[in-house]
Formats: sequence, C-alpha cells, structure tokens
Amino acid sequence: MDILDVKTTQHSEFQEITKSVQAVVARSGAKRGHVIVYVPHTTAGVTINENADPDVRADMQADLERLVPWKQGYYRHGEGNSAAHTKAALMGHSVLLPIEQGKLVLGTWQGVYFCEFDGPRSRKVYVQISKE
Amino acid sequence: MDILDVKTTQHSEFQEITKSVQAVVARSGAKRGHVIVYVPHTTAGVTINENADPDVRADMQADLERLVPWKQGYYRHGEGNSAAHTKAALMGHSVLLPIEQGKLVLGTWQGVYFCEFDGPRSRKVYVQISKE
Amino acid sequence: MDILDVKTTQHSEFQEITKSVQAVVARSGAKRGHVIVYVPHTTAGVTINENADPDVRADMQADLERLVPWKQGYYRHGEGNSAAHTKAALMGHSVLLPIEQGKLVLGTWQGVYFCEFDGPRSRKVYVQISKE
Repeated sequence: MDILDVKTTQHSEFQEITKSVQAVVARSGAKRGHVIVYVPHTTAGVTINENADPDVRADMQADLERLVPWKQGYYRHGEGNSAAHTKAALMGHSVLLPIEQGKLVLGTWQGVYFCEFDGPRSRKVYVQISKE
Repeated sequence: MDILDVKTTQHSEFQEITKSVQAVVARSGAKRGHVIVYVPHTTAGVTINENADPDVRADMQADLERLVPWKQGYYRHGEGNSAAHTKAALMGHSVLLPIEQGKLVLGTWQGVYFCEFDGPRSRKVYVQISKE
Repeated sequence: MDILDVKTTQHSEFQEITKSVQAVVARSGAKRGHVIVYVPHTTAGVTINENADPDVRADMQADLERLVPWKQGYYRHGEGNSAAHTKAALMGHSVLLPIEQGKLVLGTWQGVYFCEFDGPRSRKVYVQISKE
C-alpha cells in the first residue's frame, strides 16, 4: 500500500491528487484491476469531480459551506469541528477506480480530489492497488 | 470492462440500471467477487435505493433539489450547472456490490440507480467485475 | 460472505461495528486485500467517522436531521419515511476498507458506523473479504 502526503493550505480545500494516484498505478505495474483511494481522517474526505474549471470546486465548496455551516447552536463536540466531520461523511472517505490498460479509468473531465474540511494540515492518503 | 449506455430523458432523473448490471455479471461467469459500477461523468452519479415505490425516488430528488437548488448567487462556474456537480458528489460516482452465487448481492428492496442531474443526455456507465 | 446482525434501538442511530468487521477479517485469515461492508437496506447506510468523542456522532445526526427533516410537504411515499431514504443515500450503502497485515486499515480516530435512519429495527450488514 502506498501512502501519499497531502499538505493542505486552506481551512477548506479541494486538492487534486489524480496524478499522484496515477503514478502509484504506474509503479505497481498493474494492467487491470482497481485502486482504492482511502482517506484515514475524520475531517477530510475524497471525491471525484471536474478537473477543468476550478470554479466548479469553489462552487461545490460554497454549497457544502451553506449546507453545513461551521457553527450550529446544537453542536456539542468540544473541538468545535463537527461541521468538518459531517462534510467529510457527505463526500465519503474512499473512492474506488477501475484500472484498465495500466491506467486509471476516469471520465474525460474527472479528477480525484482530496477534500480538506479542517485545515490547513498535513494529511495522508492510502492508495491500494488490486491487480487482476 | 463493460460499458452501459444510459439515455436520460429528464433534467434530473433516477434511472434504474439493476438489470443491466446483473446481465454483465451473468455474462462474466463470475460466481463470487464484486462489481464496480462507475459513472465517468461529473454531473451524474449512482446510488442504491428502493426499487418498489417510485415515489421514493421522486421524494429523494425533491430533497436534493431543495438542498442544492439550481441557482445560487455565489455560483461562478460559467456553464451554470454547479448544482449538478454538487449533487453528483453527494450521491457518489461509484457503487460497489458483492457477487455471490453468480448474482449481485442486493437487499430485497434495493435497486441500482443512475442519477442524472444535468440531463437529458447520453451517458455511459462502466461495469467492472472482479472474480474470485 | 459473513452477515452481521445489528439491532438498533433508536429511530436514528450511529452504531459502531468496527470490532465486528475486524473479527470477520481475522476469521478469514486474509493478510492483504480489502473488505466490503455492505448494508442491504434502503433506509440505513454505513459511514466512517470518529470513534473517540460520541458527541461527534450526535452532532452529525443533528446535521442530517436539520438537512433532511422527517416531514416535508412534498413527500408522496406512503410509508412516510422518505427522509430516511435520502439520508441513507447521502451516507452511502457501502464502505470499502483496505486490509494490510491481517487488519483493517483505519485512521487512528476512525470507526465504522452503521447508520440507522428508520429504527429501531433488526438489520443485516454483509461483510465480504477479498484476499490477495
């Protein structure tokens, strides 16, 4: 299993990791199979979305911020970052991608994004390849 | 890897693809393993939900429309379909289903649904089987 | 494939199942591979989140309740539990975890949670191991 280091610089940030994941796939020599991209944190997640116009990520982040604002009167968790936990769960902690002909199978406009919701922090992403 | 063609007819639509996925499983001859159902688009997703009463899907679509309405003052993406990107990320771009005894393992009331959020369009769904 | 029995006691409840999943992994003898934790229900899901402070789960449940309240004027589904379907889809019906050195790969603070949204009920969770 490979471990990627991700350094986020914002409190909330979608950082593209597609190339790093593809590099792990290439190094593995896997021609066919799949890859699990797994985020071992509870206030960060991972998602797939558009890699072309960065405004898309900004708009998605704004949607998430509107849906789950940082402060709520009912929050009890002492660390004060419950919103980050909820947003991470909404995005999910893993994505699963097929590998064909030695490459990630992604749509033309798709990229893999690490989703930071309580940064900036140093984070890890686990990448596990299953060959076939 | 098999590719399903999905033709959506509405702007927002949950279209059941369970039988098509099951057909791929049957053709593969896999007795045990799992299947990745992967949507290579950024404004469409895939989810699992009730296959009995179609009102459930209508209610879920209405919930998503309420949570992420089509227009927001803060949207900057020129194509104007940021809401579709967010909704796709909320549902996710893949589902993973176990295969046992040559069949998809689904609960009694579960079906696999392609989630269109910016249709109508011609879409693809990738189906990759891992045998064991 | 192993089947876990989960008995929920609340209408809405995040119940930790990490140890049960780990026990299936241990029994399987798998040293490396991955595990699919699959919920075969349409009003329950599964997610990964913090296993330390139970307030986090309470806050996440409160967020979901706020985002998808039990009653909406537009709900048409006769059973009246559409909100549970939407919440289950937001959390998702499966999590996929890597196995390394015979153990689930989880972050320090991560646990696997069965998400009940229409309980209390007797539920099932399917756990399927893929060895490598």
